Amino acid sequence: MALISNIENISIIGSGNVAEALGLAFTDIGVKINDVYSQNLDNAKNLGKLLSCSGTNNISDINKNSHLYLIAISDSHVQFIANQLTDFNGIIAHTSGSQPLSVLSSNKLNYGVFYPLQTFTKANKPDIKKVPICIEANNKSTFDKLYFLASQISNTVVDINSYQRLKLHLSAVIVNNFSNLLYSVAHDLLTEQNIDFSLLLPLINETASKLNTTKPAEAQTGPARRNDRSTIKTHNELLENYPELKEIYNMLTNHIIRKYHE
Amino acid sequence: MALISNIENISIIGSGNVAEALGLAFTDIGVKINDVYSQNLDNAKNLGKLLSCSGTNNISDINKNSHLYLIAISDSHVQFIANQLTDFNGIIAHTSGSQPLSVLSSNKLNYGVFYPLQTFTKANKPDIKKVPICIEANNKSTFDKLYFLASQISNTVVDINSYQRLKLHLSAVIVNNFSNLLYSVAHDLLTEQNIDFSLLLPLINETASKLNTTKPAEAQTGPARRNDRSTIKTHNELLENYPELKEIYNMLTNHIIRKYHE
Repeated sequence: MALISNIENISIIGSGNVAEALGLAFTDIGVKINDVYSQNLDNAKNLGKLLSCSGTNNISDINKNSHLYLIAISDSHVQFIANQLTDFNGIIAHTSGSQPLSVLSSNKLNYGVFYPLQTFTKANKPDIKKVPICIEANNKSTFDKLYFLASQISNTVVDINSYQRLKLHLSAVIVNNFSNLLYSVAHDLLTEQNIDFSLLLPLINETASKLNTTKPAEAQTGPARRNDRSTIKTHNELLENYPELKEIYNMLTNHIIRKYHE
Repeated sequence: MALISNIENISIIGSGNVAEALGLAFTDIGVKINDVYSQNLDNAKNLGKLLSCSGTNNISDINKNSHLYLIAISDSHVQFIANQLTDFNGIIAHTSGSQPLSVLSSNKLNYGVFYPLQTFTKANKPDIKKVPICIEANNKSTFDKLYFLASQISNTVVDINSYQRLKLHLSAVIVNNFSNLLYSVAHDLLTEQNIDFSLLLPLINETASKLNTTKPAEAQTGPARRNDRSTIKTHNELLENYPELKEIYNMLTNHIIRKYHE
């Protein structure tokens, strides 16, 4: 049995928030970043500077001997870029929640997925140690290498196949994107009344942190949970001039009522 | 001008989570709880024991000389109970987000609202210091007394009228009840696939805590925000067997697309 060598150096394909967060995490544990590739040369060079390496917008300039080529770009471009990375011997892995492992299969020996389950933005840098990383690969030795790399930067590393990852990504969209939309709607409602949105922050944080001890189905409260038709009617009256929001309100309210009262 | 005396003792009407949380907060600052009233005698006595006072299910047993009668019961019963509290000279205040000040107006000289903007459950005890308390009253001296009492237990006390409070309550339903429903839906989707829901907790917490520094409209990310029709189509296929959830997914997705792309 061959000894599995660790991933000691990486080429990063992409220069966005995920590329930056992972790049910094890797340099922190002493893994060398060989170079950064981006279609936009300035972005490649800027992230390269941050990671003490070169930046390029030319695929043929990417180091041929990297142990790992990590693709951290928009979901919809992963396959297109992967198909151009043909001359390399290292592992190719993408970081996308919605793309299956198979988008990397053309002409590659060793490929995998390295999906950090978190939202990364320029303004907010989550502690990578607390970000679950989901690993998948086309063979055991590649899986083991990616898993070991992930376990050096995060406390939570999990074996997740493509179908599970897709459901996880859908769930992430539901809890992150949709909750954030609800926050946004509430923000607009309050701002109109000159009420400071920050009054809601303790409630929003409590709603989230309650999940550490309570299943969400058990934590459900409110007018719909109580089937309190009078309050629901009052809320509908308040939303008379917001037809779209009223539709959302009633759809979610009816969903809760059906779940708990039918 | 008469000197405004502070509220030094309180009768609590109700024995639920809000009654308990506020009762404990008042005893912590040395305000005496005279008694607890509840329709259910056991509940009244149990909370009375916790607050070192008597418990009763008989309105005529309630102390006639309390400085404050605090009604912390279901929104829909506030007016009914208030109409029975006729023999008392102290301030009458309710703790409901959805009920206007005017439900207390019959035969009362001094009345107000003392609304803590938080979700209280048996299992989770939020730090009351961080809970915003919204005050309203029918005259200035009552307002001042309630405001001073609130400021002894919370760091955030605000002057909110009945219409604003109703919008705030609606917003609280949106960010708390509806977000929690989304968490619940994600929980069910993942559990079916044997994926641990706790993998989502860092993302959920980040989504909430991001609001400390970023407006929700600016924090919006995801397939709908990017108008990524391919991922949205994939998610729809995944939800083929969940017609109700699919409807929620598409309504919220379309709302985001319209907001950012039309």
